[in-house]
Formats: sequence, C-alpha cells, structure tokens
Amino acid sequence: MKIVVIGGIAGGTSAAAKAKRTNKSAEIVIYEKGKYVSVGACGIPYVLGGYIPGPEKLIVRRPEDFEKSGIKVKLEHEVVGIDLDKRKVLVRDPQGRTFEDPFDRLIIATGASARKLDVPGSNLRGVFTVKGLDDLIAIESYIKKENVNKILIVGGGFIALELISAFRERGFDVYSLYYKGHVPSRFDRDVVEPVLSKLDEKGVKKLWNTELEEIEGRERVERVRLKSGEIVEVDMVIMAVGVKPNSKLAKEAGLELSVAESIKVDEHMQTSEEGIYAAGDCTHCYSVVTGKPIYLPLGSIANRHGRVAGTNAAGGKAIMAPVAAGTVFKFFELGIAKTGLTEREAINEGFNTASVLVKALDKAHYFPGAGRLWIKLVWEKESGRLLGAQMVGPYTAVKRIDVVSALLHKHSTIEDLKNVDMAYSPPFSPAWDPLSIAANQAVKE
Amino acid sequence: MKIVVIGGIAGGTSAAAKAKRTNKSAEIVIYEKGKYVSVGACGIPYVLGGYIPGPEKLIVRRPEDFEKSGIKVKLEHEVVGIDLDKRKVLVRDPQGRTFEDPFDRLIIATGASARKLDVPGSNLRGVFTVKGLDDLIAIESYIKKENVNKILIVGGGFIALELISAFRERGFDVYSLYYKGHVPSRFDRDVVEPVLSKLDEKGVKKLWNTELEEIEGRERVERVRLKSGEIVEVDMVIMAVGVKPNSKLAKEAGLELSVAESIKVDEHMQTSEEGIYAAGDCTHCYSVVTGKPIYLPLGSIANRHGRVAGTNAAGGKAIMAPVAAGTVFKFFELGIAKTGLTEREAINEGFNTASVLVKALDKAHYFPGAGRLWIKLVWEKESGRLLGAQMVGPYTAVKRIDVVSALLHKHSTIEDLKNVDMAYSPPFSPAWDPLSIAANQAVKE
Repeated sequence: MKIVVIGGIAGGTSAAAKAKRTNKSAEIVIYEKGKYVSVGACGIPYVLGGYIPGPEKLIVRRPEDFEKSGIKVKLEHEVVGIDLDKRKVLVRDPQGRTFEDPFDRLIIATGASARKLDVPGSNLRGVFTVKGLDDLIAIESYIKKENVNKILIVGGGFIALELISAFRERGFDVYSLYYKGHVPSRFDRDVVEPVLSKLDEKGVKKLWNTELEEIEGRERVERVRLKSGEIVEVDMVIMAVGVKPNSKLAKEAGLELSVAESIKVDEHMQTSEEGIYAAGDCTHCYSVVTGKPIYLPLGSIANRHGRVAGTNAAGGKAIMAPVAAGTVFKFFELGIAKTGLTEREAINEGFNTASVLVKALDKAHYFPGAGRLWIKLVWEKESGRLLGAQMVGPYTAVKRIDVVSALLHKHSTIEDLKNVDMAYSPPFSPAWDPLSIAANQAVKE
Repeated sequence: MKIVVIGGIAGGTSAAAKAKRTNKSAEIVIYEKGKYVSVGACGIPYVLGGYIPGPEKLIVRRPEDFEKSGIKVKLEHEVVGIDLDKRKVLVRDPQGRTFEDPFDRLIIATGASARKLDVPGSNLRGVFTVKGLDDLIAIESYIKKENVNKILIVGGGFIALELISAFRERGFDVYSLYYKGHVPSRFDRDVVEPVLSKLDEKGVKKLWNTELEEIEGRERVERVRLKSGEIVEVDMVIMAVGVKPNSKLAKEAGLELSVAESIKVDEHMQTSEEGIYAAGDCTHCYSVVTGKPIYLPLGSIANRHGRVAGTNAAGGKAIMAPVAAGTVFKFFELGIAKTGLTEREAINEGFNTASVLVKALDKAHYFPGAGRLWIKLVWEKESGRLLGAQMVGPYTAVKRIDVVSALLHKHSTIEDLKNVDMAYSPPFSPAWDPLSIAANQAVKE
C-alpha cells in the first residue's frame, strides 16, 4: 500500500507517522512545498517575543527522523494536481520539473494561508503575515536590518494579541489596529474587560473601530493611513487577520468543500472521495455543541486530525470526535481561554441563552499572588445545558477551561458543573473554585 | 424557626450563612467551642512556611460579620449534649455554666480532631498536632521562645508533606518519619518518584519504614527513639497522622455513624434523625466512583456540605452530589493531585484495573520552564470506565486533575478523556496535552 501525504507541517506529519505505526509495510511519502517539516508554528509569537532563542527550536522533527522510521520526505516539492480517477498526484520538484506519483490512499494536509488585506501598499517591504517559519525568519531579518521602533499589528484574534504582547514585551512601540471595538474577537464584550485594561496598562496604542486605507512608504513601510483619516507613522505592519484553508487543490480535483471553504470530511477524516483523507488547517471539525461543521485551524486539532486520517488511510479504524473548541493563549501576564459557544454565538445559533459573569480569586484570598479570574458561563435557559465558557485572568488559572470542555463533551448541564468537586488547597484556588462559584451563581444557589 | 449550629469553622459557618439566605426569618445561632469562627485552616502550613504574614489572615469572617447578617455567634461555648426527643442542646458557657437551648433544626459541624500517636513522651512540650488556629499560634510561639533547629514531622499524608516543605523552605532541618516506604500516602508507588527525588534534593532526612518508640526530653522534646533503634535529636515534633471525626456528641445522642466513625448522613446531609443535619469533617461523602460512603475531611467539601445542610435545615431543598474526591497540594515546587481511586484502591474495591503512567512535558518542549508532569490513569479493563487519576509535576500543571474529576462525575470512559480537545498554546501545554497523551496511550492509539 502506498500513501501519499500532501503537506508536512502538523496534520501531515502526524498522519504520516500514525499511518506508518498502523501499517508498517505501507510506503509513505510526504510532499512538502516549503523548506521545513514538522514545525511547531504556534511557537512563532514566543520566538518573536524573545522567550525562545531561535526559529530552529520550533522544528519538532527533521526529515531524517522521518526517513529513519521509513517515511520519505520530499521538501520543496509542491503537489500541483490530484487525479482522483487515476489515483495519482502531479508533483513539481525544486527544479520546476513535474512528475506523477501514484497512490493507493491520499492524505491532504495542505494547511491554511494567512489572510492579507488587499489595500494599497500591502506589498511594500515591512508588511508581513505570520503563518510559517519563513514568515518568522523574514520578520526577524527585517527587524535586524531596519531601524524598527513602531510596529502595527492588524487584527483582533488570538494571534494578533499574542504578537502585541510579544513585541511590547520586547520593548517595541506597538499599535493595535482593529475594525471592531473590543478584543479578542469571538469573545463576549463583558468578559474581556481585563484585556482592555491590560492594553492600556502596557501602553499599547489602540486604533480601533477603523480600518486600513493605505500603507505608505518609498523603500519600505513608513506610515499607514486609516479610514478614520488618521495617519500613523510605523516601521512595520503585521497582518494577523485570520487564515483561509488551502483547499484549492482539493476543489480543483473535484472534492467537496464545507464551512469556510475547508475540505469536507466525515468523522473518519475521509473526504467526499473514498480513500482520500484530509487533516489539519485545510479541513474542519464538528462541534460537540451544535453538531455542525466548524473551521478550527489549531495545531492541537491538526494533530488529532492527523492521527485519525493516518490510522484510517493505513487500514485501521479511528474516529475524530466532535470538538468543544477549547482554546487558550497568553497575553502579557493574562491567560485568555474559551470553549464551546460565546453568548453571542449561542444566540446566533438560535439558543435561548442564560449566562453569568463572575470575578473570583484564583487562589485563597490570603495566599500571595492571588488574582482575579473572570469567568463567563453560557447555558441554555430551559434545559440548563452548558453551551460554553470564557475566562480571562492570571495566566496559570485559565487552563481550567478544559473542565468545561470535558463537560461539553458529555453534554452536561450547569448543575453538573456545580457538582464537580474541584480540587482545593490555598495555592490552587479558594475553597470554592472560581468555576464552582460561577456554577453556583448560575443555578442560583 | 430556630436553627442551632454546633461548630463555627468551615461547615458550620457555611451552613449558617446559607440557612439565613434560604430563610431570612430563621433564628440562627452558632455555638463554637474555640476562640475563632470561620477559619481557613487549610492555610496553616502556608503561614508556617512564611508565605502568609500571620494567623489572623486566615480568619475569613469575624463574629460581627455574622451578627450583621442576623446570625448569632457564641464563641467558647461548647455543646456538651443533644436531646433529640426534646429538641434541645446542652451548652457550656466560658464560665463553665451549662444551659439548655431548644431548636427546631440542628446542624452538627463539630469537625475533626488531629490524631495523636500515644507514645511515651507524646505530652512533652514541643510535641504538636496541626488542626486549628490554636495549634498554629502554639507552634509559632514555641519556635519563637525555644531554640528550634530540627523539626520532626510524623506522617505521610498531604498535611505532613505541606509541613515538610513549609519548614524546609523556612530553613529548618526537617526529618520525615513515616511507617511506610513512600509518600504521599494513598498514592500509588509508581507515580510518586518525583516526590521522593524532591525530598532528597531538598535535604529532608527520611526516617521511613519505622515508627516512634518514645519521645524523650526533660523540659521539652530533646530527641526521639525509633523502633528501628535509631535515636534522633530534634527540637520539635509535629504529628500529622490524620484526623478523626468529632462524632462522640452525635453518637451519644443516638445518631448513627458511618465510615471512619463519621456521622451518617443521606444526600440531603440529614442524619439518621429527621431535622438533624451534619456538615464538614464530622461527617462523610459518597463516592461518585463506588457509590459508597467515604471520609473526606477537606475544607472545600465542608463548604459544600454546609450549603446543602443549611439550605435543607432552613426549609429549602438541596442535594449533596457524590464526590470524585479530587485533592491537590503543593510540595516545594511540585504540585501533587489525585482524584477517584488509585490503582491500589481500585483493586481493593474489586475492580479489574488497567493503568498507564506517562511523563509528559507540561508546556511545548521549546517553551522555557517546561517541566515533566507524571500522570497515572486508572480504569476498568473491560468497560474502559475511568476510575481515577494521579498527577505529580510542576505546581501550575496539576490543577488539570479537575478535568478527570468532571469526567468521573459523568461516569466517563478512557475514550471520553481521549476525545476531550484540551486547550493548547505553547505556554500552557504541548500540542498534545499530557492528559491526552495519557489517554491516547490508554486506548493504545
């Protein structure tokens, strides 16, 4: 059996490795169009922030590691076509020559591309997006060569916020440009108050409720002109305005697409064509809350996808469970996390929602360093069914979002959350854990 | 309606406050035999360790706070008898006079007492147990007056370990005496390796697999003689060998007892007698894993008990859910946590168990400060039903024990744990959370 894997970052390498473990005799080849495989791309903001010494630290495994376990890795080989009928891919090698490679099973893990706002000047030197190792290297090289003091981050999602805190902690003047009035995006306004205060406390300049009109400069970025009329001098612009799945190749081959133009898959990570699988940022998940497909381009999800796709492609049997969509990230000293639906999202899904917002200490009140954790719980009014949670607070406190994710997986109620006897001692929580306080308040006890 | 509450630490004050909120017109009186109410006794090791400036910090609410909300507090008033038929208690006031007080509903929250080993010399000056604020004050006063360098901690439970790390971090020579061969007690041997290394690394002297024969000294503790024949010079001995429920009063009144001689209650926290409730360390819980009563003298549980007992006593309706028995504590830089059953306990309960032990990084491998988290999962072999988890690792990593507690509450399987999409970014976990790694290994994926 021959398995071809297109893409070698998170989903692709997970799939290849798992396929090999599932079927030792399978011939497996990874075609990766870039120069690296197996990159921990989620670490990029932390390299930029100076936490991690260099880009090479983010490389999890090298081609030779894969070769050792019997997986061929072809770098700078781009798959430019898929022939579903003849079961072969068309590959372009580093010299630009194309060749065909037949497969029995195919795993598409083409990832996603950073969106770039199409405004005048967006191709000037000093304008970047952040997705892969190449971007990281380009940004560091630009900072090293140019006299960079002022950095504009465009976007309000978690990558934008990670970049804001990274560059600010490294001492740059940081400007946040976002077309809406609060960050992070996809959080309810009421729970993010500490994020807004933190931005002010750290001296990040907010340019909100407006948009980029033009990026100006001769040799490189010198200033931006906003729709509000404001002109701001900056040395670098980073667009962190989301990603789009690289699904063009799949679409051209005739595969069906799903939410956000991601490649449609079933619970086996099989596409609309038998024997053709997809994994990672190019495809989607199913929500455990709504049952609907959701686009969730996260490294952890890509790894899960990869294992399922790899197992099934190699003749095993695995299922990709629906996801609660738990996410977490660091923003200066804060942790920010969510799972399931926000209240806004739940309302849009047609739920009759109820919610509570509590601000509870994350440690016993007498324990040094206790800080306030903001928790918002959202549930369905009649049934009490949990729909989601959002948390903002001390960095070490927000990983308890996983408790709510676990309960969402089990279709639990707010009463169930109330009943969980959260582990307690003074350095870890108050006698009533913040989550229990929120649940108590929700059930009005 | 008149509600009498016996005991004013955690369970009693929670019950009184909740009863008042449930029924504003109820007359409520708390009889507390000690000098304080509403003490966060779980903070005692952290005061001893120098984290928290003084004992008074541990007082959550003062008598006047209760009086303000209409709850009478009688300090140094000991209830010495309960007449179930006539519905009244016999109370001894600070002057030693006794009086009767009638009640409609009674809440017994008499707490627990520290066990003390009955060996020759155990009443010498310099021998202590640790349960309440009085103990803390006595220990600090002894340390201040005497020339204390060497402290012997007897016991292997979590309070013993909290005290070991507290005194060691404060610079004392610390000796650990334990009759078994590994700590903490009630953990499986295989998962506690980092605890044993930490004891050595910190220079704690282990006197294990032996017992106290005698405590010797003229004016005060000077040395201990062990059953092994060893003689060790010490200045202070602290016995942290568990607690026993203060259930004598209830037993004498004719109430039924349960596990570990705790006061028997149903899910409403009602004792064997209608209208008489119990809460806190004097009573028990039910295990969500086995359905059986378990004795779990924890501050967080006492608070839960209190709310349920208080609600029901005041005419409301509340249920004390079974508990997963999640616990967590800090030991030097380590966090130690468990929930449900250990493998040993599960085997003793008659389960056909399976288990995995993983040692996974708690953050992305490239993130500074990543440390190894040891996780042991225990489940029932045939059904895959989760039975428990134990964790030892970086302090900030072990609160994820609550994820397993939540799943235990929902009678979940190891497959369910595998399916939870744990929130990820590099400062919070590797792309595969340690719990997911453990679950993957458990289901052999």
